[in-house]
Amino acid sequence: MTDSSNPTKPSRRAFLSGAAATGAALAASSAAAQSPDPLITEVQPWASGLGDGVDAAPYGLPIRHEADVIRRNVEWLTADTISSINFTPIHALDGTITPQGCAFERHHSGAIDMTKGDYRLMINGLVDRPLIFTFADLERFPRENHVYFCECAANTGMEWAGAQLNGAQFTHGMIHNMEYTGVPLRTLLNEAGLSGDVAGKWVYVEGHDASSNGRSIPLEKALDDCLVAFSANGEALRKEHGYPVRLVVPGWEGNMWVKWLRRVEVMDGPVESREETSKYTDTLADGTSRKWTWVMDAKSIITSPSPQMPIKHGPGPMVISGLAWSGHGAITRVDVSKDGGKTWQTARLAKPGEKMALTRFYLDTEWDGGDMLLQSRAIDETGYVQPTKAQLREIRGENSIYHNNCIQTWHVMPTGEAENVEVS
Amino acid sequence: MTDSSNPTKPSRRAFLSGAAATGAALAASSAAAQSPDPLITEVQPWASGLGDGVDAAPYGLPIRHEADVIRRNVEWLTADTISSINFTPIHALDGTITPQGCAFERHHSGAIDMTKGDYRLMINGLVDRPLIFTFADLERFPRENHVYFCECAANTGMEWAGAQLNGAQFTHGMIHNMEYTGVPLRTLLNEAGLSGDVAGKWVYVEGHDASSNGRSIPLEKALDDCLVAFSANGEALRKEHGYPVRLVVPGWEGNMWVKWLRRVEVMDGPVESREETSKYTDTLADGTSRKWTWVMDAKSIITSPSPQMPIKHGPGPMVISGLAWSGHGAITRVDVSKDGGKTWQTARLAKPGEKMALTRFYLDTEWDGGDMLLQSRAIDETGYVQPTKAQLREIRGENSIYHNNCIQTWHVMPTGEAENVEVS
Repeated sequence: MTDSSNPTKPSRRAFLSGAAATGAALAASSAAAQSPDPLITEVQPWASGLGDGVDAAPYGLPIRHEADVIRRNVEWLTADTISSINFTPIHALDGTITPQGCAFERHHSGAIDMTKGDYRLMINGLVDRPLIFTFADLERFPRENHVYFCECAANTGMEWAGAQLNGAQFTHGMIHNMEYTGVPLRTLLNEAGLSGDVAGKWVYVEGHDASSNGRSIPLEKALDDCLVAFSANGEALRKEHGYPVRLVVPGWEGNMWVKWLRRVEVMDGPVESREETSKYTDTLADGTSRKWTWVMDAKSIITSPSPQMPIKHGPGPMVISGLAWSGHGAITRVDVSKDGGKTWQTARLAKPGEKMALTRFYLDTEWDGGDMLLQSRAIDETGYVQPTKAQLREIRGENSIYHNNCIQTWHVMPTGEAENVEVS
Repeated sequence: MTDSSNPTKPSRRAFLSGAAATGAALAASSAAAQSPDPLITEVQPWASGLGDGVDAAPYGLPIRHEADVIRRNVEWLTADTISSINFTPIHALDGTITPQGCAFERHHSGAIDMTKGDYRLMINGLVDRPLIFTFADLERFPRENHVYFCECAANTGMEWAGAQLNGAQFTHGMIHNMEYTGVPLRTLLNEAGLSGDVAGKWVYVEGHDASSNGRSIPLEKALDDCLVAFSANGEALRKEHGYPVRLVVPGWEGNMWVKWLRRVEVMDGPVESREETSKYTDTLADGTSRKWTWVMDAKSIITSPSPQMPIKHGPGPMVISGLAWSGHGAITRVDVSKDGGKTWQTARLAKPGEKMALTRFYLDTEWDGGDMLLQSRAIDETGYVQPTKAQLREIRGENSIYHNNCIQTWHVMPTGEAENVEVS
């Protein structure tokens, strides 16, 4: 930032910025501090020529300068891309909404291509009247809109045994947050007719894809807040997110959010399918495993600064930003530490937390130019406090894959670069 | 919808659906009513083969089956596409968020291509210290997140003299609704230093593009809720939406939301620029024109059914859906009429209205298969009720272009098709 009334004289604000009383003032290290600045003194091509017309892109993509803000795969993680995962570039996003185009994908047999006309949804099992719905049928039931996060149970799963992946995209990017429109699953189950007690009953849900990805869900949850969704962020679900219909299971692990939803069977017990026995169960420190760990506990991550988003300015004012969420409800507070958890400051929530949705937090602070061990700690409406990795390991050991919601540490160096580390 | 336990027998629910007591039940006109349904009885290719891997699209686009859900230009409206507009496909969207890729564009000299590194923002005029900010400087100030609608003042502008354009996209599609992240303009003005009274002062804002699109804004509004925004729906602004920085002026006409924001000058009066004299003023019935009509008054539109979204099913349960908004605050109620405004029913708001943001409404109702004259009427927190076209014409005549917030009428025919009409 320069004083443009006298570009050769240091700005008074720049001078003041070192003083404690002017925390909001910026340091004089800005790129614009060079003088004269040809970007100010000379007419630039964008101001003297014409840009693109409105026919340039009937459906637009990000500008070429943002070509790095994309989903990324980690090649060594899985043998092929058909049954694999990629990661949301959360380090480069702000606010809370995740655009569909860069929202992480997880497929078990690839993203399939079906039309709305070919879509069918069966509800069967312990119902009065088994029913088959077309897509057009679904559009005739009352709809709801909700913003929810979807987190893969394996998010942060590579970090159990140590600090492995160098970037928030890779440690925490198996998450997205969208505004869904759909019909409550409750409405369709009631249309088919439920008799008797809810307790002890389950639904088994599966998709149209070859994997079918079958999962058992307690009927109580199915009747609570699950959505049979067909829109995300206003428009149709993208192919990779389950077009034309996916199940939304708010706050619960992403594997249960069955894409290309084909069938919902009401049963008197769980199926104990592959996806809920050999996978998506949690190995504990004593070598046994626990199952039915569906809820994604409170968690948070600092997205900037982070290994992919180094600090590029000198000491002085800076914004530390990140995301927090809880499968148990709304986030009520996020704390940030610069010293590896010794001391904490309460961050500012951009908006009051919403149930099972991402919450953006900011800490408007000063950087002294030295090392920082940055951590964030989420607290949700139940009072639950996000644990340290040491606390999790006491119970879970180091051989788990799923449900790692530990506090993450970034070591920010005087160069502004950051790396993934563990603190004791 | 079929009874899948006995596909040859009519479903009990289908029989019941004609009765008043079962408003939620669906009619038996569904495509799935054919029996046997090969989509159920035969293994389909998507269930027996593999789909796309996670490397198919690092940044994804909509599935090919949604290729019609795009921004559309109206060729006869403007002489060229560089200074033109296109329209959001609001008829095909649900929920409230507008994806950037299909959010309407309006350019005065085309969408320009600049980098964050080349970006500069000057604040000058009646300030203590004229300042120039780089993009990196802006990122060091405290940020806010807000969802706001942006409506072009000319939205619905072709409808003053009659029912002209056959589709909600074209009559009401100069609007979008996004979650913005940015720095309050107030923060930057205070950084430059303001002295003396706010009353009577203005800011003049202009963009980096050749048109510069200069507009005068009362300083009071600039200090209230204007945002210097760099993200929309989580990611960087798209090129066509002002990358890297646009001004957000909540509730006020879109022309003031200057893209590629270059300069904010504090002045002791308005500039009376081209964009606020020969354009963006309102010609009245008596031939005179009024100016400074910035606020977008309460308005609503039924997006489905509509000319581009005909009813494709028979009589019985149906969802009427649309959008409502007000530049004066939150929407508190939306009424829907099926008989051209003679009788009204209160629609269901998907969520409580939010200030200066789109509100989605639904009317879960029955269609008797006959003609309907569909209208919606928005009411905002000030008590203002969206007017009829006749009421607007009493004051404004038929020669206006801007600020047409009248009640829209769709004539839905027994075929399910809809057309744009006027009712007396």
